[in-house]
Amino acid sequence: MNERMPNFLKKRMFLTPDRTAVYFKDQTVSFKELYDRSLKAAGQLQGLGVQQDQFIGVLLKNHLDTVVILFALQLLGVKSVILNNRLTSSELVWQLKDSKSSFLILEEALSDKMNEQNLLIGAITKESLFNRKPEVPVIRDDINLGDICTIMYTSGTTGHPKGVMQSYGNHWWSAVGSALNLGVNDNDCWLCSVPLFHISGFSILMRSVIYGMPIVLHETFDAEKTIKDINEKNVSVMSIVGTMLKRVMETLGAERLPGHFRCMLLGGGPAPLPLLVACTEKEIPVFQTYGMTESSSQIVTLAPEYSLTKLGSAGKPLFPSEIRIEGEEGGAAQAGVAGEIIIKGPNVTAGYLNRPDATAEKIRDGWLYTGDIGYLDEDGFLYVLDRRSDLIISGGENIYPAEIEAVLLSHPSVQDAGVIGIDNEQWGQVPVAFLVTKEGDYPSEEALRQFCGERLAKYKVPKAFYFIEKMPRNAAKKLLRRNLKEWLIEGRADR
Amino acid sequence: MNERMPNFLKKRMFLTPDRTAVYFKDQTVSFKELYDRSLKAAGQLQGLGVQQDQFIGVLLKNHLDTVVILFALQLLGVKSVILNNRLTSSELVWQLKDSKSSFLILEEALSDKMNEQNLLIGAITKESLFNRKPEVPVIRDDINLGDICTIMYTSGTTGHPKGVMQSYGNHWWSAVGSALNLGVNDNDCWLCSVPLFHISGFSILMRSVIYGMPIVLHETFDAEKTIKDINEKNVSVMSIVGTMLKRVMETLGAERLPGHFRCMLLGGGPAPLPLLVACTEKEIPVFQTYGMTESSSQIVTLAPEYSLTKLGSAGKPLFPSEIRIEGEEGGAAQAGVAGEIIIKGPNVTAGYLNRPDATAEKIRDGWLYTGDIGYLDEDGFLYVLDRRSDLIISGGENIYPAEIEAVLLSHPSVQDAGVIGIDNEQWGQVPVAFLVTKEGDYPSEEALRQFCGERLAKYKVPKAFYFIEKMPRNAAKKLLRRNLKEWLIEGRADR
Repeated sequence: MNERMPNFLKKRMFLTPDRTAVYFKDQTVSFKELYDRSLKAAGQLQGLGVQQDQFIGVLLKNHLDTVVILFALQLLGVKSVILNNRLTSSELVWQLKDSKSSFLILEEALSDKMNEQNLLIGAITKESLFNRKPEVPVIRDDINLGDICTIMYTSGTTGHPKGVMQSYGNHWWSAVGSALNLGVNDNDCWLCSVPLFHISGFSILMRSVIYGMPIVLHETFDAEKTIKDINEKNVSVMSIVGTMLKRVMETLGAERLPGHFRCMLLGGGPAPLPLLVACTEKEIPVFQTYGMTESSSQIVTLAPEYSLTKLGSAGKPLFPSEIRIEGEEGGAAQAGVAGEIIIKGPNVTAGYLNRPDATAEKIRDGWLYTGDIGYLDEDGFLYVLDRRSDLIISGGENIYPAEIEAVLLSHPSVQDAGVIGIDNEQWGQVPVAFLVTKEGDYPSEEALRQFCGERLAKYKVPKAFYFIEKMPRNAAKKLLRRNLKEWLIEGRADR
Repeated sequence: MNERMPNFLKKRMFLTPDRTAVYFKDQTVSFKELYDRSLKAAGQLQGLGVQQDQFIGVLLKNHLDTVVILFALQLLGVKSVILNNRLTSSELVWQLKDSKSSFLILEEALSDKMNEQNLLIGAITKESLFNRKPEVPVIRDDINLGDICTIMYTSGTTGHPKGVMQSYGNHWWSAVGSALNLGVNDNDCWLCSVPLFHISGFSILMRSVIYGMPIVLHETFDAEKTIKDINEKNVSVMSIVGTMLKRVMETLGAERLPGHFRCMLLGGGPAPLPLLVACTEKEIPVFQTYGMTESSSQIVTLAPEYSLTKLGSAGKPLFPSEIRIEGEEGGAAQAGVAGEIIIKGPNVTAGYLNRPDATAEKIRDGWLYTGDIGYLDEDGFLYVLDRRSDLIISGGENIYPAEIEAVLLSHPSVQDAGVIGIDNEQWGQVPVAFLVTKEGDYPSEEALRQFCGERLAKYKVPKAFYFIEKMPRNAAKKLLRRNLKEWLIEGRADR
């Protein structure tokens, strides 16, 4: 993984300067223009003291400027700590500290999140940055595939977010693995309406520069705009999650997508079968996929020829990658037997930033233990049963119950807390909380919601609070979240 | 380059077992069938004592069996020494000895080349091999990209052939680099009528298994069969050299190639401009390319959008690779200034088998010095002026004058010898020899031809012999081949 390679954007600009790189609103930017803008931004960043090998926080929305800044950081050889802009101020500050970031680039519209006295590092809005006089930047002509390109935070069962180290090689191999599965056509164009701060969105940027392929960048997902741009901008591939796909289908109504559209890459958890069947009937090619921040997006994707016969499966691991189902006694489980999904490959992270213990716990013998549960059928196709057992996926965002529980437990009236996901028409799932409070102390639902809202991103705030007498825990005091689900179904919890 | 990867054919068979791998004559073989046949052959080879990490000579023609044997050797983790079947017995024995090959697999039809008592290693014909009872083979489930996959011999200015070490990674990155330039379409099919013992043909096999793409394999090049299969087998890409392309054009006459045909990948030296223009007029997409055994095929290829505006250029280096023109004083030459082409990238060999000195001489500071002369235009497009200054390219085969000179010098009547290439309508170039003979000793042309024919492949035997009084050499006794060319043009040499 220490192969030396030309700087991706610089090489792409050299190879095909005139090809379109990004369509954003009414702007069309070629690779040459993208390079020139990124070079200028790199000079502006350098003028601020930003330099190679630093970690720099990035808190930006989906926008052409974000693409420019992310590539400017790559040109300088800076490691970008890409922050989820739905997080609260305290969550963001925690991640900046944890990653030892030297600086923060954010946008005006998000700057209220950062008016915190506890942010001890320099920060600049992109608006101010772009007004600075640029220096002549020192550009990295080449990179090592082992170098860290980006850090993205993900939580785990312990509740503490961990910075996933994504190297240039991780992103490269991910893009190549996808190319060898989905193909690369001359007239491909990838629609990105998923967040650039997620690996789902960021990986589209990397494919763009590695393939020399235009992307259509949307600020947020909008079903009508999606359909319009698929038609007018010749979009051929789109990354999507179940709730988005559902809205596209509803908006389409009796219409169909044009013939040049060849792939809905469906991530973010399994989609309901009726939705997949409806897509099949409309001849919309849906490719179920399985991946995570740690695998720099897809690691398992259904190949075109099996999209019908293996409906519901996430497919087989991409060419350079491998998966295995860990049996109860260790070693590979037999076909049809469920167990933990473990993954391996050059797209898989080397570990978590500054967390040797967490890294050692999750990566054993070269295999990353995902915590997700699934099985392989007799032909080796993966079926994902449960994401990280406790993981809640809400509108494509990962929510870790333990993180919410930790916040609830910090409330003065709360003695014990448990969080689970429940099905939701609009978001797929939403979190709800179960609380054991101190005797005679019943905080109002509104007070709890406000308490959480100050400490957690909005989508993580429980949509309901249930008061119970005793939290179901096993002998080892491990919370039995499945019991909470059953109680809810049986109506045994009071709201 | 020590990335671990699944065994290529095994992984491909697992991913897309039912896709067609090879069309050969009237046979259609899927990846599953190719795997099964290769597995059986691996068991038969193992029964002979062939085992992992050995070097095994392979002397085979273009045939489905050859594909099976080459993949069987990969399954076993054996390093294939792929022999040019146009070489003479003594040339072949030399390469087998030099590579310390443990065994030779050859075909009946070529076995007369090996009825030599000086072949001290075991040999078996493929016909006998396939009649053996197979063992259960020990298969390599995965490989390291740094492992040697193949050895192909190439000569240099010193006249001694050297074994180029081609790793799995070299082949992988070559295939990926090509994919990112030419694209990978679902319905791609690559026609291979160039020899599998050349990197031009072998690289098509590797692309097949890495992309999951069918190939059409021809035993030899035949213009009519080429046109027929492009039409009937939906061939979309073909590797070709100038003389072949010329014949295809002549055979086509007023006809055109079908719309699904998207790329003539033209290697083996620059093609004459009138031919390229004729192709343009017929809308045949020709992609000039530059590569060599040391770069595991293409390293520079013209991207689609420049096939017209940069006619005659070999293009720009593939994404993972780099080239530079070495100026007279070292360092990069300016645009427009000719110099030696030097190359770098993960597709470039680590060096020559058992030749640390030759490796150190050719690879300096990570750059491989090709000996070829060219220049970059202001946009960075490569124009190749001279292949390895002295290299003769005849019908796509590389001929090194020094190798022929060494044979001529071993003739009792010859005192000094010089070989150059002259233009030839049919082959592009053919070799001719200049001789200084011992006083009063004039061997007949026929005797010389026979002498060479016993020691050199037919295409290397000089087509004419010229007798001169003194060989043009500089003060350092370096042969001035350019002077020989001028003499020939001026009619100063007697035949």
